[in-house]
Amino acid sequence: MSWQIIGNMLGRLLIVIAGTMLIPLVLAVYYQEQVIWAFTGSIFLTLAAGLILLLVMGKGGSFGFKESCAVVTLGWLCAAFFGSLPYIFSGVTSSFLDAFFETMSGFTTTGASIFTDLHNLPQSILFWRSLTHWLGGMGIIVLFIAVLPSTGNTSFQLFKAEVPGPVAERVKPRIQDTARILWLTYVAITAAEIVLLVIFGLPLLEAVNHAFATLATGGFSTKNASVGHYTNPAVQYTIALFMILAGVNFALYYFVLKNGWKHFLKDSEFKLYLTILAVFTLLITSNLYTQQQYGLEAAFRYALFQVASIMTTTGFATADFDKWPDFSKYLLFVLMFIGGSAGSTAGGIKIARILILFKNSILALKQILHPKAVYSIRLNGQPFSSKISNTVLQFFFFYIFIFVVATIYMSSLGLNLVEAMSSVAATLGNVGPGFGAIGPAGNYAGVAAPGKVVLTFLMLLGRLELFTVLVLFLPEFWELKLTKNRRCAGFGDYSWLEQKTYKT
Amino acid sequence: MSWQIIGNMLGRLLIVIAGTMLIPLVLAVYYQEQVIWAFTGSIFLTLAAGLILLLVMGKGGSFGFKESCAVVTLGWLCAAFFGSLPYIFSGVTSSFLDAFFETMSGFTTTGASIFTDLHNLPQSILFWRSLTHWLGGMGIIVLFIAVLPSTGNTSFQLFKAEVPGPVAERVKPRIQDTARILWLTYVAITAAEIVLLVIFGLPLLEAVNHAFATLATGGFSTKNASVGHYTNPAVQYTIALFMILAGVNFALYYFVLKNGWKHFLKDSEFKLYLTILAVFTLLITSNLYTQQQYGLEAAFRYALFQVASIMTTTGFATADFDKWPDFSKYLLFVLMFIGGSAGSTAGGIKIARILILFKNSILALKQILHPKAVYSIRLNGQPFSSKISNTVLQFFFFYIFIFVVATIYMSSLGLNLVEAMSSVAATLGNVGPGFGAIGPAGNYAGVAAPGKVVLTFLMLLGRLELFTVLVLFLPEFWELKLTKNRRCAGFGDYSWLEQKTYKT
Repeated sequence: MSWQIIGNMLGRLLIVIAGTMLIPLVLAVYYQEQVIWAFTGSIFLTLAAGLILLLVMGKGGSFGFKESCAVVTLGWLCAAFFGSLPYIFSGVTSSFLDAFFETMSGFTTTGASIFTDLHNLPQSILFWRSLTHWLGGMGIIVLFIAVLPSTGNTSFQLFKAEVPGPVAERVKPRIQDTARILWLTYVAITAAEIVLLVIFGLPLLEAVNHAFATLATGGFSTKNASVGHYTNPAVQYTIALFMILAGVNFALYYFVLKNGWKHFLKDSEFKLYLTILAVFTLLITSNLYTQQQYGLEAAFRYALFQVASIMTTTGFATADFDKWPDFSKYLLFVLMFIGGSAGSTAGGIKIARILILFKNSILALKQILHPKAVYSIRLNGQPFSSKISNTVLQFFFFYIFIFVVATIYMSSLGLNLVEAMSSVAATLGNVGPGFGAIGPAGNYAGVAAPGKVVLTFLMLLGRLELFTVLVLFLPEFWELKLTKNRRCAGFGDYSWLEQKTYKT
Repeated sequence: MSWQIIGNMLGRLLIVIAGTMLIPLVLAVYYQEQVIWAFTGSIFLTLAAGLILLLVMGKGGSFGFKESCAVVTLGWLCAAFFGSLPYIFSGVTSSFLDAFFETMSGFTTTGASIFTDLHNLPQSILFWRSLTHWLGGMGIIVLFIAVLPSTGNTSFQLFKAEVPGPVAERVKPRIQDTARILWLTYVAITAAEIVLLVIFGLPLLEAVNHAFATLATGGFSTKNASVGHYTNPAVQYTIALFMILAGVNFALYYFVLKNGWKHFLKDSEFKLYLTILAVFTLLITSNLYTQQQYGLEAAFRYALFQVASIMTTTGFATADFDKWPDFSKYLLFVLMFIGGSAGSTAGGIKIARILILFKNSILALKQILHPKAVYSIRLNGQPFSSKISNTVLQFFFFYIFIFVVATIYMSSLGLNLVEAMSSVAATLGNVGPGFGAIGPAGNYAGVAAPGKVVLTFLMLLGRLELFTVLVLFLPEFWELKLTKNRRCAGFGDYSWLEQKTYKT
């Protein structure tokens, strides 16, 4: 393991993080808030730590697969550690663990909060919360790749380790260009939402905060009642729409701009995404309409918003869905697992994987009838190897296994069955709120400290899509010398998606 | 599809079923119960249907893979249909669906009941309930193979289709001999339990009833309070022990008798089975001891009994575990999925599969570090192909997928979250009782009719380990002509287990 180069990169990452803290600092100065010193101190410490790492660690050593896994995992941990300093220095929480939980929840775009009253918090602190979402949404490492001078193959390694799923669609041959285009799309859609929210009457700062949390599929609101605070249906529909947009593979937007609208209809993942969204919205609408006091429009609006929010793993709420009938609650619970599209900012298992699992299931049954036939799955017209579906099946098993074990643990801390299950599903899937005490009307403040530690870890595990973090637990990872410059092929051979990219 | 030979075999199966009904008839005569005529009528009808099928259908047509799947699935449906006649003719229930549910629950060794008061039922009816368990436990098709004259390769086809998992351990080269040895072991252990229960004070008939339900891991008791009716700890420990014995691969007993006790310790599945059993018992014991009013011995006894009952998917209860702390309940819920050993009478995913899933997971992580290395999993020292682990991963996905979809359906019928989830887990896993209204103190009588239909189907699906039933839903199954005499290799290439069988 080349600790030299790992330290060097972490140092550079911390300098970027320190830079992003300048924005809430400016806001604190503008609003003349007392937390000016909290931000100044945080920036100073983060910058100092970054510079020390840069100076102490040389540029030596080779950068390979193991280093990329280490940089990404440690990078996220460092970001969450230094990102929590403003909360601690400002005194909005007295617990380091709570601050760390909140920051990890922000960067991983989970949106699970330990704050019990948001209306008490300074504007700059609320803004920092939303900003951690927005930075984490597209990936802090991808950001890092986009803003820093080219580091050659290193960038690709990092990109793959942070976005290991069926996400690794390179829209451009150079990974830096890909990262920049993704960020540009991200910025453009965020700006569009801000404009619309301001038109519908939100103050600029609130519009920015909510747009950041929407595009990142994060879920931190600046209001105690979340988006339910805004009773104007136009606001609720707008945010629902942008959550849905944020759950789409961002590379798809690039292709649509390049090749026209029909490209949407060619994409199987996009079609399945909209289908699931529509079916679940209809089921919950009818359930709410018949069982609750809502009118038809309200039932549809609440259903659409909550389905979009949970499926894209955002976690905003316009209604206390914990009070809904169990049928609706269970549907939302299932959505926590499904998640959004690969290559979006959403978490969960992801639609691309669900699609592969389905196609593979039909294949597996056909294989029983014809044991000697050689089948291959096609996605968007491209065939791909059985190796991919096996990786996806394995991912599915890991996901469910981690869910079960973590739920046993949370349950041992005294959470009831539904709370324990939903706390794990909501953090591993980067959703945010669960049911019961941790529901949309509650928060995670009351969870015991050991539970918060585990849930924080689950957020990271979910955000980095399991494998990058899990390999670190393999003793062999620390023992063996690996060949230089190995590409992270093991994360799933998604070369078919890259092929598609170049062909279209 | 050769309907001739399928009809012929179903006819023969019905004659066997009619034969088994003679035992409760004898009992009805002995106790001078009014239900004599119900059994006589049922036997007459079943026998008549069987003979008509035999006469109408010739012996023509070839018997291949498709036919074996059809015979097994239809065989179980026919058995449940004609097996429900005594309940209907005797008037103990007025609903055909309820009678069918009860019979399917019996044959599949689920143990979910629609009877609200068992103490009102005639002895012969209670005995027929237990007998359906006992017949279904080892497999009605395996029974059929064991008692009927050799049909050559046909028997192997049927055996594989009924026991498709890692169960297909042939202890003898001839499948008839294997079936007979399995049944002999089964009869011997059942006899041992009857003797012990009589020694500990149970009347003979009750001892027989409970031994049948134990060895089949069924769960029908003759008492409203289930085994909790017997307050003598010796009875509870005895039944717990025999449930544990029934959850072991029956082929293992044959090898132990042949090769000595050490054979137990060589078997990885057996070791994992005991480990899970011990860990869950300890966790629940400590939870009950600290949270409930039980003393240490009682806490241990209740924990052991319920863990053994749920893990082996029996479904007996000595305590209303629905009233236990959520931590204990969640652990029991997880056990419903794990299930017993392959080749036992237990349901669930099964330990052998869990073991393969674990080993494969570590392999998958190693594969990330060394993409080009070729790994193979070893079980009991024998290497086996990645094809097996893929089949097992696929089985796992189907299991969870069916669970999720069925739970959505049950939830739409108005069951609460926990009831909906546990009703599906308890029927798909052939456990029996769930939580809430369908908990150990409740029953399935109150479930809406469409729910009962789905749960009945889940019992069959779980008992036949998914694939045999699922292939019937593939349109191709009905279209294509398949080669004769194909072995059901597609169900999972478990030849490694057969190899092991011959080597030891």
